[in-house]
Order: sequence, then structure tokens, then C-alpha cells
Amino acid sequence: MISRASFLWAAGLEKMDIDGRRLVDDLRALARIGKVGTGVNRLAFTPDDVAARQWLLARMGAAGLDARIDGLGNVYGQTPGATKAVVIGSHTDTVPKGGWLDGAMGVIYGLEIARAVMESGAEGGVDVVSFADEEGTFLGTLGSRSFVGELREEDLAGAVNGDGEALAASLLAAGYGHEDRAKLDPARHIAYLEGHIEQGPRLEAEGVRIGVVTSIVGMRRMLVVFHGQADHAGTTPMAMRKDAGGRMVDFAHELTGKLGATAGKDTVWNFGRMVFEPGASNVVPQRAELLIEFRDIDMAVIDEMEAVIRTGVAAADGLGGVRTETSVLETSAPAHMDASIGAAIEAAAKAAGAMSLAMPSGAGHDAMHLASHVPSGMLFIPSKGGRSHDTAEDSAEEDIVLGCRVMAGTVARLLGLSE
Amino acid sequence: MISRASFLWAAGLEKMDIDGRRLVDDLRALARIGKVGTGVNRLAFTPDDVAARQWLLARMGAAGLDARIDGLGNVYGQTPGATKAVVIGSHTDTVPKGGWLDGAMGVIYGLEIARAVMESGAEGGVDVVSFADEEGTFLGTLGSRSFVGELREEDLAGAVNGDGEALAASLLAAGYGHEDRAKLDPARHIAYLEGHIEQGPRLEAEGVRIGVVTSIVGMRRMLVVFHGQADHAGTTPMAMRKDAGGRMVDFAHELTGKLGATAGKDTVWNFGRMVFEPGASNVVPQRAELLIEFRDIDMAVIDEMEAVIRTGVAAADGLGGVRTETSVLETSAPAHMDASIGAAIEAAAKAAGAMSLAMPSGAGHDAMHLASHVPSGMLFIPSKGGRSHDTAEDSAEEDIVLGCRVMAGTVARLLGLSE
Repeated sequence: MISRASFLWAAGLEKMDIDGRRLVDDLRALARIGKVGTGVNRLAFTPDDVAARQWLLARMGAAGLDARIDGLGNVYGQTPGATKAVVIGSHTDTVPKGGWLDGAMGVIYGLEIARAVMESGAEGGVDVVSFADEEGTFLGTLGSRSFVGELREEDLAGAVNGDGEALAASLLAAGYGHEDRAKLDPARHIAYLEGHIEQGPRLEAEGVRIGVVTSIVGMRRMLVVFHGQADHAGTTPMAMRKDAGGRMVDFAHELTGKLGATAGKDTVWNFGRMVFEPGASNVVPQRAELLIEFRDIDMAVIDEMEAVIRTGVAAADGLGGVRTETSVLETSAPAHMDASIGAAIEAAAKAAGAMSLAMPSGAGHDAMHLASHVPSGMLFIPSKGGRSHDTAEDSAEEDIVLGCRVMAGTVARLLGLSE
Repeated sequence: MISRASFLWAAGLEKMDIDGRRLVDDLRALARIGKVGTGVNRLAFTPDDVAARQWLLARMGAAGLDARIDGLGNVYGQTPGATKAVVIGSHTDTVPKGGWLDGAMGVIYGLEIARAVMESGAEGGVDVVSFADEEGTFLGTLGSRSFVGELREEDLAGAVNGDGEALAASLLAAGYGHEDRAKLDPARHIAYLEGHIEQGPRLEAEGVRIGVVTSIVGMRRMLVVFHGQADHAGTTPMAMRKDAGGRMVDFAHELTGKLGATAGKDTVWNFGRMVFEPGASNVVPQRAELLIEFRDIDMAVIDEMEAVIRTGVAAADGLGGVRTETSVLETSAPAHMDASIGAAIEAAAKAAGAMSLAMPSGAGHDAMHLASHVPSGMLFIPSKGGRSHDTAEDSAEEDIVLGCRVMAGTVARLLGLSE
């Protein structure tokens, strides 16, 4: 139990419980906005994303929260009268043709638990937030970065979506763009909680219904480019080629073994993109590109993976007349969840009769920005087939409800009622 | 010397010579049609390609040839009065942003030699042809296939360009599409000659100015597809992935060694395209595709290369949960040039004071369709830096003129004047 919470006393919180039907109904209602097949399409600041924010604002208002949408599109509702609160949130925007639960579930968990706490008559409160553009249509985790004061003005100014539309113009078109910014309030906020689908196969494979996130992994993306020469693949003898593609194949094969030897037990890496240019059957590839991503909860492992890649690229440089080039495109540090909040989630799961599994989050979440500013915790429920970022994404309704109940129990513990 | 030619007698042919200035001027004039930088853009049946055909028709007419454009866009000019003729040709269409000599040079060689023969007063003649769509904007070597009667009506019906436009409609829009077809005439035509830039680096590297083509290589294109599963690259443990990309890298690496062991000394192969899908850094590749092309003058070698690929794909099937699939996209048989014509080219080169090199053609040419219907020969001149299919393609003017002079000497030999 975190000490700051312990002084709180919230009369009536002991009989606080969530309404599973209301929770699922709200999730289903939200899923109809931007519905595409069994999933949703709510890219940040598109009309469907804006409609979902307006819907959420109305639901917060109906629940009795003091709610508003800030100038970046963050939907933020505070429990009136409370002087201390747990912030619960996630995001309601999606990737193209995404799932109905990724982000949305964590937001509606907040809404439902805020309602339950208010209905219980407790003094401590729950503030609910839907952060803008977590999925990075313009700028990943835009809203949560702003919420903790980590967003730089120059990030905002340069942000464009895949169609080249500027963030600033899209905010204005969506009806946002005003000066107001919802902010984390250290005097009020004692913790941040985020519930999320696992987006992976581990809970399902292990038959456990609640995941307690220990850390959100750090991630690095590197681009390796080989430069050869485009020659006619019929007329240029093999020995006279500068074949960027062939060299890249050999490099990537050798690197696979070296990365495997460097990786820790939970390290993951991916060769997500391999492209040869010009890409014609009868032209020796002039350029080959490999996009590599790797993640770990330990920054030292991430640095070591990068060093292995750089050493391999340097060794390949000049072989077969091919020049090499490498760059880091993106990096993020691991974010560690608060251990006592983790213990509270585990205890709440146990009280709800559920097993839990301590595990890293291999995906990034808004919580990674909150974690260095306020004690934070994340809870996972199983993803069917491990699927996400796809309309096939789904979780069992009983797991959705269980996750919310466990989070409510966690809130009760954080607000100081039960141990 | 081919026997059919030996009975010909052409008075005045002994003093026949080409006009190098006129040849180069015509080539430069043609290069202005569809000019793009130092190259040209004359995709089959575009306005610039049609303008080039009209220009050529006019130049043939001015030279005194009986010239016409047939219903497929073949420009064909016959020497009037001649009962026996050597056909000389190539194509005036280009790849996108192609070079000024690829195809065009062979056509203007024909025009210039036809003029020179007519000016010499010889009886034997030269018929000149610019075949339509050699580069395959709609259907590769369309014109030469039709010329020898190898074009099937169903090939015509289904042909579309990269924008989905039908060949039939494009022919009509170009002003062609009528019933007339220029045809090889066994009673008249004693040989086919094609002059071409090498499109490779060998002549330049060996310091030889004339290449005598022995065979045009056969070619096979195969597509290998690996099917895995798209999973989140952060949340899916390495051991639980079905990584189509990773498996493809290993397969391609192993195949490189096996193809090297199978290849003959002039065999070439190319991994021209490698694509991972969906191609995102944070998604395990669901699908990986490798496009392989290989060429040799010996069909047995080509078949053996295919067998090696099929064996490798079969061995990879199922590894790491990845399914494999392979198919042959395209195949063409080697085409052998006539040995006595080759000897005539070599003799003509020697008479012109030039060394020659017997070599295969690694690229396809219209001559590959002619070769099984009429004794055929091809002559190469050096390509600067081996470049082609690019606006940087170029050859020295003195090599262009030398090649034409050697071909004229070859024609004199074929028409029976000199040995």
C-alpha cells in the first residue's frame, strides 16, 4: 500500500462494487462509433474519433463527473468534491481497422469505477481520462505526454499524419486546439491505473485471467540500409554485381543468430520490414532496407542489442561492393510500474478469486509516461488468440468484467479502505 | 556463310558503306521524341511512342523503302524491287525513363544499311522493322511474336498495362488495330540481324568493341511465398511466433549457397524482390515474398536451378509454423543464333579492324523469336558502365558507328558478295 493513500478514509467504499452489465453496455455502445466489422476505425481526430469523445463527455456528465475536452482532445472527468483521487484512463482512438477494446476498455473501467465509487458515497474519488492519439496517427501518446508535462511544443508543430495533414489543423477541424490542458495534479492524484487487453498470447496460454504489469518494455527501432548498384540481372555476371539485396539476406541471417545470443529471456525483436529497390525481377537490387525493432525491460539489454547490430553492419560494409548505413529511428526507455500498486492489484485479484501473473508489457501504453510522475499500475486481461490491432481482437465478457472488478478492488485499497 | 544467300549477286555491293554521320543524326533525332534528361520515355502506344513510329515511317519513306505501320504498331519497310532480303530490326519503344539506344540503335542500323545497300545499286535488299512493345508495357516482344506467327489471339485479348488499360483499346487509340500484320516471308527473307547495346559490363571490361551473340539465354522467374501469422512484435514471445520474414531470411541465405553450387559459369540469378507484409516494425511478418529469376543458355541448367529452389522450399515448409508456396511465373527457352551468321559478323568485324567476343546475351531480344524461323544473328556494342534501362545508358559514338559498319559488312557477306 502506498503511504500517501493510507490517510484516506472513504465511508461506504467497503461495499463498493461495479455494475458489470453497465460496463459492457457502455463498451458495446462505444464500439458502435466507427464500427468496421467486428472492430472499430477511430483514427485520432477523424469524425468518428471526435464523435466517440463527445459520447464519452456526455457519459461522464451523466455519471456526475466534472468533465471537459481539452485543447488536445483529452477527455477528462473529475469526481466533484474529492480532494484525493486515483486517475484511471487509457485512450479511445484506434489504429486503422483496430479492435473494440484496445484503449476503450481502460477508459470505461475508469468511468464505471468512478460511478461505483460515487454511488458508494466514499470521499476519495476517481478521475477518468481518455488520452488523445495514443496510437500515433499524428504523435503517439500525445495526450498522456501533455498530461504529465512531457510534450514539447516543437513535437506538436511538426506532427503530421500519413496523409501529410498537420496536427494543429486537424485539432482545429475537430473543434479542439484551444489553450486548456488537462494536467496531472500531484496534490490531488495519488495513483494512475490503466486496464488493458494483453495484446499477446501469454495469459491465454497459461490459463490466467489477470496480468499484473511489472514494467513496460523499452523499445528501439533501427533502420539498416545497404547501398549497391542497379544492374541488369541478365547481362551482369554474378562476380561483377553490387547486390544490396543478396548482401542484406546474408547480413540478416547472421544477425539472427547474434541477436538470439544477446537476448534475455523476455527480450523480443522483429525484422518487420525488408524491402529491395527497385524491386524488379530483372534488376539487381540497388538498395535494401531492413527495419529492426527490439524491446526489453532492461535498458542495458537494449543497448547491447544495438551494439550487436552496429558491429554486424560495420563488418558487412564494403563486402561485395555494398556500402552500409544504420540509424536509430526511435527509442523509448522502460517504464517501471509501482511495486506496491502491483501488490494491491494482486491482492484484489485474489479477493476476487482470480489468479494473477506478474509480467512485462511488451506494448507501449499511456502508463509509460505517467509512471515517472505518479505511482502507476497496469492490469491486463487475456486477449483471445493474442490478437490485437485487428478487427478480430476480442476478450471474453467475463474477463472484461473481472478485470474491472479487480481494478475497483485495487482502487479501494489505494483509497485506504482495505489492505 | 549460309547457303541460301550464296546464289545472290548484288552488283555494286563491294563498295557499299554506311554514313556514320547520317546514322548518328537519325539516332539523335529519334532520341528527342519522348526525351527525358539524357534518356527517353516511350512506353508502347503512348503518344511519344506513336510519334516515334510516325517519324520512322517518314524516314523509311524518305529512304525509298515501301513502308507501313501494321495493326499492332510494327513499322516495316521493304526494299522495293528486291526478291531476297536480310531483315534488320529491333524496337523503338522503351522502359519508363529508359536509354536512347536500347532498341532504337538496332532499328536505325537497319534504316542506314538499307539506305547504303540501295545507294550501292545492289539487287539484294534490306527490310527494316521496328517491332512493337518489345519492353512489355502490355505484352513483351508483341511485335516480333506476331511477325513470326507465334502470337496467340488469347494473349492479345488479355493484355493490359500497369494502369489496367487494355492493349486492344490502346492500339485503337494509337491509330492502329487494323487487320494488317507484317510477317516474316520465308521466300524473301534469308536472315535476321539485330544490333543492340550489350546492356552489361563485359565488353567494356574486356576492352572489346564488338560482341557476337551465340545464344540468348533462357529465363525462369519463380515466386516463393511464406505464410506466417501477424502478431504484435512487442507482446508475442519469440517462441510463439510464426514469423514468415525470419524464416524467409534463413531460406534465402541457404538457397544462395545451393544456387551457387548448381550454376554453370555463365548462369546468373537474382533475388530481385523481397517483401514482408504488413511491413510494420511492430508486427511480426505474416507474409514474405521472394522473387527469383535465373538465366542460362542451357535449359537443363535452368531446370536444375528450379529443382534446387523447390527442394529448399519443401524443406522449409512447416518450420516455425510457416507454410510455404512456390510457383513459376514465367519461363522462356534459350534461343540459339545461327553459327554461320556469327562467323560472318566476326569476319566483318575483323575486316573493320575490330576484335570481337563471342558471348551469350543475358537479356531477351526480339531475335529470340526470329531465331527458330530464320537464321538469325545479333551484334553487341559496349554499354558505358554496363548501364541500361536507365537514362544514364550510353555508348560511344565511334562504337555505334563501328557496330553499324560491321553489320553492313555482315549484310554484304549474307547477300553473297564477300566471304
